[in-house]
Amino acid sequence: MAFSFLHQLECPRCHASYDPDTQAHLCTCGSPLLVRYDLEAASKQLSKQELQRREPSLWRYHELLPVRSPENVITLGEGMTPLIPLKRLGAQLEMPNLYVKDEGVIPTGSFKARGAAVGVSRAKELGVKTLAMPTNGNAGGAWATYAARAGIEAVIVMPEGAPTITRNECAINGARLFLVNGLINDAGAIVGRGVKAHGWYEASTLKEPYRIEGKKTMGYELAEQFAWDVPDVILYPTGGGVGIIGIYKALRELQQMGWIGERLPRLVAVQATGCAPIVQAWQEGKPDSQLWPNSRTIAFGINVPKALGDFLVLEAVRNTDGCAIAISDEELLQAQSRLATTEGLFVCPEGAATLAAAEQLRASGWIKADERVVLLNTGTGLKYPDTVQVEVPLLQPQDNLPVT
Amino acid sequence: MAFSFLHQLECPRCHASYDPDTQAHLCTCGSPLLVRYDLEAASKQLSKQELQRREPSLWRYHELLPVRSPENVITLGEGMTPLIPLKRLGAQLEMPNLYVKDEGVIPTGSFKARGAAVGVSRAKELGVKTLAMPTNGNAGGAWATYAARAGIEAVIVMPEGAPTITRNECAINGARLFLVNGLINDAGAIVGRGVKAHGWYEASTLKEPYRIEGKKTMGYELAEQFAWDVPDVILYPTGGGVGIIGIYKALRELQQMGWIGERLPRLVAVQATGCAPIVQAWQEGKPDSQLWPNSRTIAFGINVPKALGDFLVLEAVRNTDGCAIAISDEELLQAQSRLATTEGLFVCPEGAATLAAAEQLRASGWIKADERVVLLNTGTGLKYPDTVQVEVPLLQPQDNLPVT
Repeated sequence: MAFSFLHQLECPRCHASYDPDTQAHLCTCGSPLLVRYDLEAASKQLSKQELQRREPSLWRYHELLPVRSPENVITLGEGMTPLIPLKRLGAQLEMPNLYVKDEGVIPTGSFKARGAAVGVSRAKELGVKTLAMPTNGNAGGAWATYAARAGIEAVIVMPEGAPTITRNECAINGARLFLVNGLINDAGAIVGRGVKAHGWYEASTLKEPYRIEGKKTMGYELAEQFAWDVPDVILYPTGGGVGIIGIYKALRELQQMGWIGERLPRLVAVQATGCAPIVQAWQEGKPDSQLWPNSRTIAFGINVPKALGDFLVLEAVRNTDGCAIAISDEELLQAQSRLATTEGLFVCPEGAATLAAAEQLRASGWIKADERVVLLNTGTGLKYPDTVQVEVPLLQPQDNLPVT
Repeated sequence: MAFSFLHQLECPRCHASYDPDTQAHLCTCGSPLLVRYDLEAASKQLSKQELQRREPSLWRYHELLPVRSPENVITLGEGMTPLIPLKRLGAQLEMPNLYVKDEGVIPTGSFKARGAAVGVSRAKELGVKTLAMPTNGNAGGAWATYAARAGIEAVIVMPEGAPTITRNECAINGARLFLVNGLINDAGAIVGRGVKAHGWYEASTLKEPYRIEGKKTMGYELAEQFAWDVPDVILYPTGGGVGIIGIYKALRELQQMGWIGERLPRLVAVQATGCAPIVQAWQEGKPDSQLWPNSRTIAFGINVPKALGDFLVLEAVRNTDGCAIAISDEELLQAQSRLATTEGLFVCPEGAATLAAAEQLRASGWIKADERVVLLNTGTGLKYPDTVQVEVPLLQPQDNLPVT
């Protein structure tokens, strides 16, 4: 009985392979590396029935994750987030089979916990003492959290404009935190120089191969939650793109294991109109994106002007007959409010963008009325207090409440 | 096959019984009412094996919950929160079997979601159109959330000093929100007058019988997560007391069903030194508490100067050979920081108080080294940004990171 069927690291661009049991970052050709498993052996050990008996965390899929020894698993119980039907909103929008997969209900309140749990566990297994990364906030909070639990030092650099609460998360967990007067690409450059100078473990998006392995579990869970009959459309807010790359990777792995059929969900990359490099590349039929100048959106997590894995996102979208679509800040704030008042879901701005996107794609006919549509909400709205403007009447103890 | 084995409402003080299928609030004697089930019939239908096959939410225990019809279940996937071993902290504190049950990983980021999910579902089943309640913040956020999902109007009154983020939660979910220049008892009096004047459904703590039914599921889950061999000590931050009353009720029900043995965990009510009416009553051997004057603590959720269910809390503590203990704000902030840096858990101040309490009870010998000890963390630290003070260096894009 193997805990993991980790086999090798592989470059998706030049197909070079690497030993998975030494620290690895990018391929010599500059591409991110992907983790490969012995799926045939895994499918002999793991069954759908066995899965049902396991605890509701992403570690239920440990055979398909890169951590070799259970002692190295650093977990806070992350994963198996709820799949929530949106009956009232679905009826209003003529999508009766509309769902949210709610990544607000996970440690750190953001899907970034998945990548951090698996990434930090594997870093611990590989002997890492200090890791460093740039972040738009949530990833930093998550990696600081799991690094604290693992006893690994974390050096985090985030833009000054990132959500304030994520500073607190990094700080209380004991990370060495720095702000930068710039965007995530500026933070990335600072981290890159620090890694080179000090020999830290580079944990930037896709610059180590294991974060994606944590995030792909969203794909496994969706397949399992739909009883292995995958939905028709999945909409994903896309910044660095690891979530959508991961879901596509997971679905392909399940296909190879024979657990799902030929049909895949159409994957939709949702961006903000103020930062839409993937949408532009998709519209122009290009294999990768151009740096988006002066990028700007209230959905801070998808303010990524140029993603290292852009070509992998575009591949996932094209290979599944998906599409890419940009949403304005005004539209996504309206969608955020509508999800809360109609369904009781207080989602992050990034997650809200997927509802606005679904609405537009339904109106255009790209989504059909009978299709099963999943909005991926990547985090809780609680981390973005500034998106809600509240003026509340103040009463004195002797006052009475008005009727309406 | 019954969805619920709801049998009747019963007064724990004068033992009067009430029809459960009409709206009910307090007993004519002034006591809260408790929900009773046909446990014998329930234990014939529900088995421990069957439970394993059910989804990881509190609705897995639906036979022991008051909602009669599945169509009335208002859910966001709440429940089955993680039970997290604290190995490093446990070793430091000589409690090798120390755990956190983490209610930060639940919709709305607080255990209040449990009471709201079940309470709102049952209110919907009973035909409620408008509910009203006072809150220290988190309960209001949770009830506003589930009321929005149910299509029920919510009128919420909270102290001006309650956590700001909970205002946003109420507002974005469309509740009618009011602040009061006072404490929760002042908010309660305003709501009481509003209920009388306008005929709203009174949803104050213990003034409707179903909130406790949601919260008791923490007790079911703990029993199930410990494979029906319950832990030795459970520490619970105690304000209104519904959580600890609910856990005690759940454990007694499991005993009556023969699912757990005679031994119960010792229940510890943890309060703040600035608001410790239950601790005082426990020390003085009294059956109920006195209103605590000028109450004050940073752990806002347990700033409850006089709880309606105080006698039930004291009963739960006494009947399980438990105790009550007060923690200073300084101690709980230290504990909050220690949980984060050592275990990667960013808990709310109320939850942090349980660690400080466990430490003191271990030092005094009240907790033995080999005992299995559970800290109940009632919510995520993300909702309390002000408890973390951060000063972060600001870099320019051309700057380099220092070594240490």
